[in-house]
Amino acid sequence: MSDSIFHFLEPKSVALIGVSQKTGKGSFNILENLTKFGYTGKIFPVNPNANEILGFKTYKDVQSLPEAIDLAVIMIRRDIVPEIVERCAEKGIKGVIIVTEGFAEADDKGRFLQGKIDETVSKNSIRILGPNSMGVVNSFDNFSSAFIHIPKNLAPVALISQSGGFFEGFPDCPFGKGIDLGNTGDVDFIDALSYFEKDDDIRIIILYIESITDAPEFVKTCQRVVRSKPIIAIKGGMSKSGSKAAASHTGSLSAKDWLYRAMFRQCKILHVDSINVIGDIVKAFLSLPPFTGNRVAVITPTGAGGIITLDSIENYGFQPAVLSKKTINGIAHFFQPWTTVGNPVDILSAGMAHGYKNVYSKVLESCLNDKNVDIVIAICGAYTLKTIKDITIRHPEKPVVVWVLGADQSFIIEKTKLFNFMPYYVSPDRALYTLRAVLDYYRQNEPSLMGGDKGA
Amino acid sequence: MSDSIFHFLEPKSVALIGVSQKTGKGSFNILENLTKFGYTGKIFPVNPNANEILGFKTYKDVQSLPEAIDLAVIMIRRDIVPEIVERCAEKGIKGVIIVTEGFAEADDKGRFLQGKIDETVSKNSIRILGPNSMGVVNSFDNFSSAFIHIPKNLAPVALISQSGGFFEGFPDCPFGKGIDLGNTGDVDFIDALSYFEKDDDIRIIILYIESITDAPEFVKTCQRVVRSKPIIAIKGGMSKSGSKAAASHTGSLSAKDWLYRAMFRQCKILHVDSINVIGDIVKAFLSLPPFTGNRVAVITPTGAGGIITLDSIENYGFQPAVLSKKTINGIAHFFQPWTTVGNPVDILSAGMAHGYKNVYSKVLESCLNDKNVDIVIAICGAYTLKTIKDITIRHPEKPVVVWVLGADQSFIIEKTKLFNFMPYYVSPDRALYTLRAVLDYYRQNEPSLMGGDKGA
Repeated sequence: MSDSIFHFLEPKSVALIGVSQKTGKGSFNILENLTKFGYTGKIFPVNPNANEILGFKTYKDVQSLPEAIDLAVIMIRRDIVPEIVERCAEKGIKGVIIVTEGFAEADDKGRFLQGKIDETVSKNSIRILGPNSMGVVNSFDNFSSAFIHIPKNLAPVALISQSGGFFEGFPDCPFGKGIDLGNTGDVDFIDALSYFEKDDDIRIIILYIESITDAPEFVKTCQRVVRSKPIIAIKGGMSKSGSKAAASHTGSLSAKDWLYRAMFRQCKILHVDSINVIGDIVKAFLSLPPFTGNRVAVITPTGAGGIITLDSIENYGFQPAVLSKKTINGIAHFFQPWTTVGNPVDILSAGMAHGYKNVYSKVLESCLNDKNVDIVIAICGAYTLKTIKDITIRHPEKPVVVWVLGADQSFIIEKTKLFNFMPYYVSPDRALYTLRAVLDYYRQNEPSLMGGDKGA
Repeated sequence: MSDSIFHFLEPKSVALIGVSQKTGKGSFNILENLTKFGYTGKIFPVNPNANEILGFKTYKDVQSLPEAIDLAVIMIRRDIVPEIVERCAEKGIKGVIIVTEGFAEADDKGRFLQGKIDETVSKNSIRILGPNSMGVVNSFDNFSSAFIHIPKNLAPVALISQSGGFFEGFPDCPFGKGIDLGNTGDVDFIDALSYFEKDDDIRIIILYIESITDAPEFVKTCQRVVRSKPIIAIKGGMSKSGSKAAASHTGSLSAKDWLYRAMFRQCKILHVDSINVIGDIVKAFLSLPPFTGNRVAVITPTGAGGIITLDSIENYGFQPAVLSKKTINGIAHFFQPWTTVGNPVDILSAGMAHGYKNVYSKVLESCLNDKNVDIVIAICGAYTLKTIKDITIRHPEKPVVVWVLGADQSFIIEKTKLFNFMPYYVSPDRALYTLRAVLDYYRQNEPSLMGGDKGA
């Protein structure tokens, strides 16, 4: 079935059924958003009360549409939705996004209406996204059915979500493509996963899940997709009250949280408990080479920073690298004779005596050349980022992760944007949590890369 | 003893012993930093090889200093530090910051030298900060002994740290004042806590701890100070390897992690495992009214956002508020008849139909007036912050916390800076974790505020 959903993401023509004449700020006008998004396909607004909207010729009803159309987006009162879906099917429209809400998530009447839509789907080749869905955002192909403004972004990251509320992205994690499954009446996680599996624009897939209906098929699909693309999942409704709320959000019947946790393990996907860490993990996948070793070297201008990084290294099952004699001998002359040079390499005094950037570069280079080191964590201020970049770019095979010190996060974010190939974190626990997630992925999914790991 | 440390933070005169003639970028010159910091007291550079540095008359040695001086900052090779400290004591200098490293944290000779300094301290009224200390930063009184540039900030937050590495602040958490205890040879946590307890510039105290030597006195002091000011502590060296590294950082002998955890509980201070959450907690203390109730109302433009917020509410031991009939009746007309209006209040469709900001304001106001609601979590995009501010400002007695949706964190930070009275979070789990920490503090420390809590 998965082939059929490409009409939703890359439609050549789209009918907007029930689009409003109201435009401008606060109007939530899909047509306006779509044109602003740069869509170049054909647009057919349908509204019985208008002749044109925003310069587009408007059609009175579905029957009068002039040609076969890939996709229809429906935002009309719920009572007439089933009938309009049937008209769309008759017209040969391949996919329908139902934005309208008030179906399975609402009341008995809503469930009855959604049942009528299901009938049409089962009797025809038409596919339905929703109801109660914002539809699709696809920055790569300039298509958006969202009634709110979503900033365009070419991140190779796809969101498959039982909500459009996260289309704008998670913290530090914008999406290039997104599908809101809404009540998941027809198009589901399996369709969307299969689509993005073959989508060359997409390297990572994020799921926001409220409920999974066909668990065996979901598990099978995840196990297949995850071999080529990491999948990160967050599940809403893991608590009692959250699960109850999910029922009235998308009509989801949520199983027990431990059942979901067990299923996610079986799927081999990364299940996270906070949206806050998703951007961290995505950054690591997009900018680090694959790795399977767990021996970490730490370079730091602050002893305390090195110590709490060691704490995180241990907490997340990594090992402090034992630097080779060659590495230590190569940098020992920077340090006071009474200093035991080891890991973490605390470079502040050495940097003060021999030039900070000079020492930082030499130590980083030595660690990157050290066969006892699998990963480097470089602790630094924002002004050292360029120095670190200049060295790491010559060692693309070894992961270097940066913890940028300081309070002013917007300054740090702007500075690090200049070096977006390098994942940076706000604290060592965030860095190590992320590395653990990525390490687990590569150990599970790329056995050919295994080796070089002396540790746990 | 605590009275004696004010010379370290507010010296009227300071001698810089061993200050370098090298100035400018990469010179780590304390004198240069101090003048840039706007210090208005008297400065006496001591350097036998110079007549003046940066326009300041330079003295050959401690003996030739012309007057009684509050504070000396020593950065000379370790061998002669004990002797210079003795000269300072003879001269009547009240406090000495020893920046020089290579003492108890280094080797046998270092331990011997630190012992000599201890002797001088025990025989005189002189106080020592360090050795191996960056000293002090005090933005309120324009004094800094740090050899690196620390941005000035008037945050009412003090750092007491066994490292200067965090003087620049934790993420989203700058400090107005900081003391680096270094090897904690003399001035210790107890001195510094007692000082900040009485400091009207300071409302919150952060500790970075590697080891506590006088545990009973530390506990007693914390229990006293915490009654008027929240104390947040992070402990470096909780892991085996981290604890080993702490020994060579500040000469600390770290006890078992569980002993520290038990002690922190006894202290009634907030012990955190990540520097990442400290800024979150500080923001809440600085901008929220005290509260002891745990019933949370959630306003959201995204159903999914509401659901994962409920999950966090339950996880952190809060309760979803049961909105009063008055509240529900007052806002029901915004919603479709089939919608069950409850908590979370999902306002998207209502906002589309009746004006988004209009509905947001009315719902927020109703929740703030509802006696069943202790706390409001307002989920929003950055453009709704002003609307929320306009309402919350009229309800200073009830905490409102904002989760700002979106990927672009530097944009969100800049937007929220306009509304800095309002704590904002990047995800619901961060918000609820923080509220739990703050709630626990007020329940423990302001029993007069108790009441209004029907829940756990």
